[in-house]
Amino acid sequence: MTPPRKKRPTSYDVAVRAGVSQATVSRVLTGNVKVSDDVRERVARALAELDYEPNSAARAMKTGHTGQIGVVMSAITNPFHQEMLREVSRRLVAANLHPVVWYLDHGADELAVQAIRQRGIDGILLTSATSSSAALEAAIDKQLPTVLLHRTVDDSFCDQVGGDNFRGGYEVAQYFSDNGHTRIGMVTGSLMLSTTRERERGFRAGLYDCGLDISEQSMLRGEVSHATGVAAAERFLRLDDPPTAVFTTSDLLAFGVIDALEAAGRSAPEDMWVVGFDNTEMADWTSFQLTSVDQPIREMVSIAVDLLREQLEGAKRPPKKIVLPCKLVVRRSTAHVAFAPRAHASETAADSK
Amino acid sequence: MTPPRKKRPTSYDVAVRAGVSQATVSRVLTGNVKVSDDVRERVARALAELDYEPNSAARAMKTGHTGQIGVVMSAITNPFHQEMLREVSRRLVAANLHPVVWYLDHGADELAVQAIRQRGIDGILLTSATSSSAALEAAIDKQLPTVLLHRTVDDSFCDQVGGDNFRGGYEVAQYFSDNGHTRIGMVTGSLMLSTTRERERGFRAGLYDCGLDISEQSMLRGEVSHATGVAAAERFLRLDDPPTAVFTTSDLLAFGVIDALEAAGRSAPEDMWVVGFDNTEMADWTSFQLTSVDQPIREMVSIAVDLLREQLEGAKRPPKKIVLPCKLVVRRSTAHVAFAPRAHASETAADSK
Repeated sequence: MTPPRKKRPTSYDVAVRAGVSQATVSRVLTGNVKVSDDVRERVARALAELDYEPNSAARAMKTGHTGQIGVVMSAITNPFHQEMLREVSRRLVAANLHPVVWYLDHGADELAVQAIRQRGIDGILLTSATSSSAALEAAIDKQLPTVLLHRTVDDSFCDQVGGDNFRGGYEVAQYFSDNGHTRIGMVTGSLMLSTTRERERGFRAGLYDCGLDISEQSMLRGEVSHATGVAAAERFLRLDDPPTAVFTTSDLLAFGVIDALEAAGRSAPEDMWVVGFDNTEMADWTSFQLTSVDQPIREMVSIAVDLLREQLEGAKRPPKKIVLPCKLVVRRSTAHVAFAPRAHASETAADSK
Repeated sequence: MTPPRKKRPTSYDVAVRAGVSQATVSRVLTGNVKVSDDVRERVARALAELDYEPNSAARAMKTGHTGQIGVVMSAITNPFHQEMLREVSRRLVAANLHPVVWYLDHGADELAVQAIRQRGIDGILLTSATSSSAALEAAIDKQLPTVLLHRTVDDSFCDQVGGDNFRGGYEVAQYFSDNGHTRIGMVTGSLMLSTTRERERGFRAGLYDCGLDISEQSMLRGEVSHATGVAAAERFLRLDDPPTAVFTTSDLLAFGVIDALEAAGRSAPEDMWVVGFDNTEMADWTSFQLTSVDQPIREMVSIAVDLLREQLEGAKRPPKKIVLPCKLVVRRSTAHVAFAPRAHASETAADSK
């Protein structure tokens, strides 16, 4: 039923057909410049005629390169991470590199360590490293080209690219204060995540500078999920004095808060202002229209892949830490739009979209 | 600043320390049974003492196995595909296999073909194959263990696992008819996707059997995105007689329809019933509460990985095609709940959640 397995041509077959040594075929395949144009052409013709495909394992043995870049992702269900992965994948493929994606939910750290120790990858992009990440330690130990994307660690022993999470959180606090809010709530992810830590620190610093604070009851920490946002809003609504403005360290949490408000017959912004972080595509959907802190994701990923390529090409330089500015994008969930003077509506309509 | 690169122990070093030949070390590493327990123990001790890690390329050369399974995904932004990938990743890792994920948006087909031809992967799970998929052709040609997941092709030359998309679509048509709808709308993805084709065929067959049809104006085909759903609803609302019930071949399309209704001051189900397909986690969020056709995703993925493992272990058998039943999950977007007799509310409340 199935055709017999075709015999694969080897580099020996190519050498015989081209009338050169096997070493010469190897030199042509690895792009060695010490080969005459005439020989290169004869080998190329033989390769084409035999439909030769270098075995990836054999090539990796010879060149020491696999062309694969490990990408360690955290939670797969966070829409921001999906947008980031799409961008990472697009950029790596454009650079002729093969992304190999691992998810932390499924033992990514261990798989990454294995791949690093066994030289299965040429480099690694870590989007979920904590300072105690085994993959990060293994990568540093083996001097593997490594970039931390969207995560930072305190010691700068490898390239790091991220948004200014501290400043982003700080500005949300100021925005709440400027608009007269004094009862403030917060929903955050695990403190294991550098993004959560920085956003929370920035938000608290901003509140402090405005003479504000968060009461313990208006604060919930949990996994970054829709369900955590729902649980937080349900708890806040049971308080005698619920917060009038809530900052969540991730859009996904904010969607949960908005949904729980709706389920309780309340709404954002009328009963509670809600601000997320990441400015995901979903934040712009009519159901949410979520005010959110935007991270320049395309720029972040583009820089991360460039830094990785510099390392792959053997650049010797001290590690770089690049922090890009974030900005608040205001939508319905903080009612700001409703306060805008209607007289300008016809003017702005022409500009938008 | 950086420590000098450590010299990696080779299998030669291991052989010297264990007092055996290099070939014996290799036999131990590949699990060859023709090695005495005593020798095996000496080699194991030497491996441990030298902190030896077999190079993945070297091992792949020897055993012909990389432990990597290619996973070809289509659109990364469809929440159903994320849920499927999470499940695939979980199952493969549990089976000690390494998922290597490619996205169709970023040349997955080409990358997969390269990996297949260069023997970079041991098997492949295709979740986005069309009958003209180059990756599928290459996999079949090389007799690589291959399973189509969530996609089917007409010729059964490889294992296939999917939901009963035809029946799912058929039952939505019956559901609309049973509830008195006669003006029917549909929003679908590209006909290149077998899922779209089967769902649409089933829906049209169901309508036909109920004496119903879809007018050309109440039908929109486009990429599977939130924006396509928005565009469809906006078009339907401009009709003199808009459809009263709309079936979308994907939840993501349905979210767009619901959002566009809301943006126009309308809503589901009051102005339009909306039914999706996939029963994603988001379908249950308060903002959407979308009636949707559920696919048994865990079971689908579990069967697919089992079939792949059978092939990896060398099973000789004809290809299997497994189709699992789908079922309609009713939520607010079709108002069915509101019609339920209120008298039973106290009884059912105790059961739910």
